Amino acid sequence: MPHQDFDAIKRLALRLHKRARGKFAIASKVPLRGPRDLKLVYTPGVGAVSSFLAQHPRELRNYTMKGSSVAVVSDGSAVLGLGNIGPAGALPVMEGKCLLFKKFANIDAVPIVLATQDIGEIVRTVKAISPAFGGINLEDIAAPRCFEIEARLKRELSIPVMHDDQHGTAIIVLAGLLNALKVTGKSLPKARIVINGAGAAGTATAKLLRKAGARNMLTCDRRGIIYRGRKGLNGYKRELARLTNPNDEKGDLAAAVRHADVFIGVSGPNLVSEDMVRSMERGAVVFALANPIPEIMPPLARRAGAAVTATGRSDFSNQLNNSLVFPGVFRGALDHRVRAITDAMKLGAAGAIASLVPRPTPANIVPGMFDPRVAKAVAASIR
Amino acid sequence: MPHQDFDAIKRLALRLHKRARGKFAIASKVPLRGPRDLKLVYTPGVGAVSSFLAQHPRELRNYTMKGSSVAVVSDGSAVLGLGNIGPAGALPVMEGKCLLFKKFANIDAVPIVLATQDIGEIVRTVKAISPAFGGINLEDIAAPRCFEIEARLKRELSIPVMHDDQHGTAIIVLAGLLNALKVTGKSLPKARIVINGAGAAGTATAKLLRKAGARNMLTCDRRGIIYRGRKGLNGYKRELARLTNPNDEKGDLAAAVRHADVFIGVSGPNLVSEDMVRSMERGAVVFALANPIPEIMPPLARRAGAAVTATGRSDFSNQLNNSLVFPGVFRGALDHRVRAITDAMKLGAAGAIASLVPRPTPANIVPGMFDPRVAKAVAASIR
Repeated sequence: MPHQDFDAIKRLALRLHKRARGKFAIASKVPLRGPRDLKLVYTPGVGAVSSFLAQHPRELRNYTMKGSSVAVVSDGSAVLGLGNIGPAGALPVMEGKCLLFKKFANIDAVPIVLATQDIGEIVRTVKAISPAFGGINLEDIAAPRCFEIEARLKRELSIPVMHDDQHGTAIIVLAGLLNALKVTGKSLPKARIVINGAGAAGTATAKLLRKAGARNMLTCDRRGIIYRGRKGLNGYKRELARLTNPNDEKGDLAAAVRHADVFIGVSGPNLVSEDMVRSMERGAVVFALANPIPEIMPPLARRAGAAVTATGRSDFSNQLNNSLVFPGVFRGALDHRVRAITDAMKLGAAGAIASLVPRPTPANIVPGMFDPRVAKAVAASIR
Repeated sequence: MPHQDFDAIKRLALRLHKRARGKFAIASKVPLRGPRDLKLVYTPGVGAVSSFLAQHPRELRNYTMKGSSVAVVSDGSAVLGLGNIGPAGALPVMEGKCLLFKKFANIDAVPIVLATQDIGEIVRTVKAISPAFGGINLEDIAAPRCFEIEARLKRELSIPVMHDDQHGTAIIVLAGLLNALKVTGKSLPKARIVINGAGAAGTATAKLLRKAGARNMLTCDRRGIIYRGRKGLNGYKRELARLTNPNDEKGDLAAAVRHADVFIGVSGPNLVSEDMVRSMERGAVVFALANPIPEIMPPLARRAGAAVTATGRSDFSNQLNNSLVFPGVFRGALDHRVRAITDAMKLGAAGAIASLVPRPTPANIVPGMFDPRVAKAVAASIR
């Protein structure tokens, strides 16, 4: 696929959004042609449904949108690579996400962008609006706030809650890594894995890789390798320090990457040099997932010796994108009425995606975004 | 139209809702066929829209759902005639309402049913979710709580907020009354008007009729006529007492109705007898709007001398239903970017609906629910 001119894409995107005046629309699942239909869809017929559901609230999933709906909730504090741009900036992303939910998993998702960034207010608001929804997809909420918000909502709600920037990313990275290691003939427990970026995505990825068996991991933030006892670590990074870095290594990203088998970037543009890739082990795996500008462009990484490269972009091979994950996760959660997305489910989902490419090659470690098998396979693993 | 068997309608409604698994679905306003579309609808293209809107939040209406969306918010405290049945019972009604918004005014409305009935929590929640919406339709919230919630939201938000049970009802009642008085050759300032029910609908109707020129009004609640100094009146009913009942009349509903020109019921089933209608003036107007069972069935009212009857039901002539009002009100509010629905706009909307029936007859005082001119005429008056 040719590299696209980003400026052209930007222009086209702005024009499309303006012409359509937004992307999100609603529709009816039932006919509404005249007074006969109206009597069933609205008063007086709907009153019978209301009375029944007031007495049997567990039947809500069978008679209302609750059986197929997800709220896509953002406070706009970490939108794409754009940072804290607030709810106005977040809205077009959430609308787009809702369309992907519909396209890939026939889920009726609703964008909810919040006029608050206060943890307590966010938790209260999501709880207050939860009755109509079968699940809550948290989106583009900055770390470390996202961890507490997700944890509290999981505790206080009985519908599944998932912060996609964390777990969607972790699942697709694990799926890609399973196949990349197959290509390079290495094993997860032994591979030296460096994760750059200790925000939402990096933290969840480190934790899920550990659950999957990775034992030789380093995580880095802007200040370098995270290690036990490093000054100024918040509680979440202290936990990362405990779960990774078994030999208490210190140093910058270049030091971390030296002799690494796997680099996973969920950080920022152009942070990895060709020299850094050259310092990795033979058969290096380089996932440069920063969007839209990766940590290193795949052709440069391959020139420097990387055996397998991946990005979050559609214009390179091996697109590791959450969109392969979240539609199926929530489809499965709704269909199988799970109350929470567990680690076992996440591992299952990653395995399911990886197994759709039974003979991975350097240019093909995950299925394509529009492969209709993906959401089904993921959904089947969420139970 | 023949009277319908309510039990049959109930059965059909339950079956329809179960088969469809709810009524609300989402759709896309833009194509999403493959990777090319995806790049514009979602990352990386959408990033350009996000950056632009973060810098120009006033453009939100031109690039996102905000230009065409309304949140339909209920706490389930006064659902149809069913009372306080909570969010589960409210959800099918709100889904139905969203479909009417789409059908009649191409508005993308979203059902929001709340897990709280606390005034402060409701206000905070609606404010928190407001950025994506171009308007807030409050629905089925009990009086007197609804008054404070609406007043606070109107004060604290810069998008239009309307409690439809109040103002939608008031507008359609005024529209019907203007034409009913034409039929009976009476005038609004002189007509003796009795409103039974001093909840959301009754209170707003009394206030709007007064703005329209009515001067000889009585309002009644379960305890009879509301008058200045009656014990136990809350602040809202004290205001009603000031605005109505110029001669400080006292007594029950039967006393109120005696020699009345107009009865407007927004109360409960079978509260008005034929004798009570017989005690009204010649050319009596009887709007028996309780749903699904009116205060008096139209054939009985006519047998007792009523010249014009109306109900909220589709199986009698003269259906006075909010659905003639709310789609056009919000369409107009969105199109003309009004920040609040004023009394002048409400009067204009009622007049616009009435004028669609230039030669009213006893059996035809308002246009039909599916008359495509209605929403357009109402929308044109909201500016």
